[in-house]
Amino acid sequence: MAVNYKKELESASKTMILVHEPDTLIRMVVRMIVQKVGVRHAGILLHHKERDSYILTVSRGAPGLKIPKGFARMDADNALIRFFREHLDKRLFNDGALVYGEGKKLLKSNKITAKQKQLLKNALYQMEIFDALVCIPSYFGSDLLGLLLLGEKKNAKKFGRDEIDFFSALASDVAMAIRNARLFKELEAELEKKRRLFIQTTIALAAAIDAKDHYTHGHTSRVTALSLEIALRLNEGNKEVFNAKFMEDLHIAGLLHDIGKIGVPESILNKDGPLNEEERRRMEEHPLVGVTILDPIKELEESIQGVKCHHERYDGSGYPEGLKGEDIPLIAAIISVADAFDAMITDRPYRKGLSRKEAIEEIKRVSGKQFDARIAGVLVKLYDEEKI
Amino acid sequence: MAVNYKKELESASKTMILVHEPDTLIRMVVRMIVQKVGVRHAGILLHHKERDSYILTVSRGAPGLKIPKGFARMDADNALIRFFREHLDKRLFNDGALVYGEGKKLLKSNKITAKQKQLLKNALYQMEIFDALVCIPSYFGSDLLGLLLLGEKKNAKKFGRDEIDFFSALASDVAMAIRNARLFKELEAELEKKRRLFIQTTIALAAAIDAKDHYTHGHTSRVTALSLEIALRLNEGNKEVFNAKFMEDLHIAGLLHDIGKIGVPESILNKDGPLNEEERRRMEEHPLVGVTILDPIKELEESIQGVKCHHERYDGSGYPEGLKGEDIPLIAAIISVADAFDAMITDRPYRKGLSRKEAIEEIKRVSGKQFDARIAGVLVKLYDEEKI
Repeated sequence: MAVNYKKELESASKTMILVHEPDTLIRMVVRMIVQKVGVRHAGILLHHKERDSYILTVSRGAPGLKIPKGFARMDADNALIRFFREHLDKRLFNDGALVYGEGKKLLKSNKITAKQKQLLKNALYQMEIFDALVCIPSYFGSDLLGLLLLGEKKNAKKFGRDEIDFFSALASDVAMAIRNARLFKELEAELEKKRRLFIQTTIALAAAIDAKDHYTHGHTSRVTALSLEIALRLNEGNKEVFNAKFMEDLHIAGLLHDIGKIGVPESILNKDGPLNEEERRRMEEHPLVGVTILDPIKELEESIQGVKCHHERYDGSGYPEGLKGEDIPLIAAIISVADAFDAMITDRPYRKGLSRKEAIEEIKRVSGKQFDARIAGVLVKLYDEEKI
Repeated sequence: MAVNYKKELESASKTMILVHEPDTLIRMVVRMIVQKVGVRHAGILLHHKERDSYILTVSRGAPGLKIPKGFARMDADNALIRFFREHLDKRLFNDGALVYGEGKKLLKSNKITAKQKQLLKNALYQMEIFDALVCIPSYFGSDLLGLLLLGEKKNAKKFGRDEIDFFSALASDVAMAIRNARLFKELEAELEKKRRLFIQTTIALAAAIDAKDHYTHGHTSRVTALSLEIALRLNEGNKEVFNAKFMEDLHIAGLLHDIGKIGVPESILNKDGPLNEEERRRMEEHPLVGVTILDPIKELEESIQGVKCHHERYDGSGYPEGLKGEDIPLIAAIISVADAFDAMITDRPYRKGLSRKEAIEEIKRVSGKQFDARIAGVLVKLYDEEKI
């Protein structure tokens, strides 16, 4: 025999554990069977829990030879399903596989009861409808997870004992691998859900806090979006620095950069004119108040740098620490440019906002002094390309 | 031979995929080898990425016969490690396994170069030190994940070809299973991290908002803790309702129940006396403002019910909707009791807070009117037991 089933099975099993996408896995297995064993057509029915029926998930073979088109599922009362769910003595069936020819023989024997014969007969009839010569169940514990249906071999020969053994072992491995893959998928979905929940809640709370500051409505979300846009563009040159983690940290930092304003009295936040010395001092406390609020959260370490330093200036004239140049965390330097640009183009009661063009001119003017020239340059580029 | 290795391997592989705890997995495998194959001792060395060395993870056998105690790891320059990392032609070594006796023979042959002989000689010397007769590598791709070291068989017989085959297949399965288990563990850790991040950020932002309301400092965290305490007690009777999901929803709802207060002007929140009609109206908007803030977050659906309805009263006299009895979501009914109790015992500038005892008397008095009697009863019980 040309195929070494033991080797095939070993290598298939190993590959399977590493595939965490159930659909891909099932396709892979059916493709392998059709190719290696050379059957004319094959299909896999998988259990659909909610409906308690078995759905045709993959069907392969030459056109017209596949499991018939109209056939898409078997309900729990289908004879073939009942046959495998009621677990007729496995020893009669090559470890559980039902081979059409052997089933026919068994009908004529006295090894099973009349009632069992009736069920077997109906099960075989189902196989005829689907033009299947072998039907291999796949169990997890005592649950029937699925059925593998195989048509005639291309060389029209009978299926050998080693082939049936191979299918049974394979079906069992597939069941495990599918369960494994499903667990992975569930975990991944759960993770994505939690990630979304975290971001959305942060967005909602940041927006609520933002709304306290009547004059800058929507400021937080605009600064966040612009910061991410700038980083994406910087990213083109350096994918190592601007990895997914950096982008997520920046996202959070953008959302929370003004969180400390919750500590500034409304009378100052919403004052109808320029701030006096004392009011300005209170206002300039907001980065450090933000740090105090977020400090207990270890995972936000990087984002907190953005919150703390988004009013630092490249030439060292900013606050709270008067950091200079490269000492200013990149995440903060990006937010700083986005924040200043958005503030410039926003109207205040005591002054009208600049036009975008004017703001860009101003950004250019202080680039290298207030801002990191490379980041300011990206903002200017985005404007020139009409991206902002 | 008493052991059917094919069956053992199949069943071991299947069990392995389902074990998502790498340490358990490795222990399981070594236990199986010692028992089924009857070796005197066995050990597994696993690769430690950061250190690039191989650490003895499990060692089994009769006392004094285990892999010697002092031996704990092999660095990358150890001859045995180099031997398996440099991949001497596998065909010479039973699919990669190194059997001491066969290695000795190979040294005398002319199948390998002088340089290879030197390495092999040093590798065999390492095996002598560790009293190992067989050494089986476990690869993932071309990375050496680990080594299985086996001592003499209990019956002192030579290892057979079928046994070596079995170990090799097993080692390879173990490598896959370990990788699978590690991926699972990483994913689970990631999920737990995200969960914590979400909760902690919500706590931080809720506390910051809470701090705006000068008179109720710490109210949010106290109400949350008390609500969870009440639910845990209610839980004793009905684990189906009070499952992990409910507790998490309640946790979030507790943290966010007053989030809508961010929409109430500071002048009302911090007013130094009772509120007038208009101020009260503004204040009573806070549950619906909270709903508006959180509404976009689908996953918070249940928690939002707690935010919305925590001022509803059992007799229908509450707000915003005047819901009655069982129409009030359980999550809100619990927060309502905890919230009222904490408000009663907190000082306000225009009135001193009640003592705990007085507050409990008041809760009893309005139980069944303002509060669901079952929930109020639990609070009273917690007080009686000096738990609060």
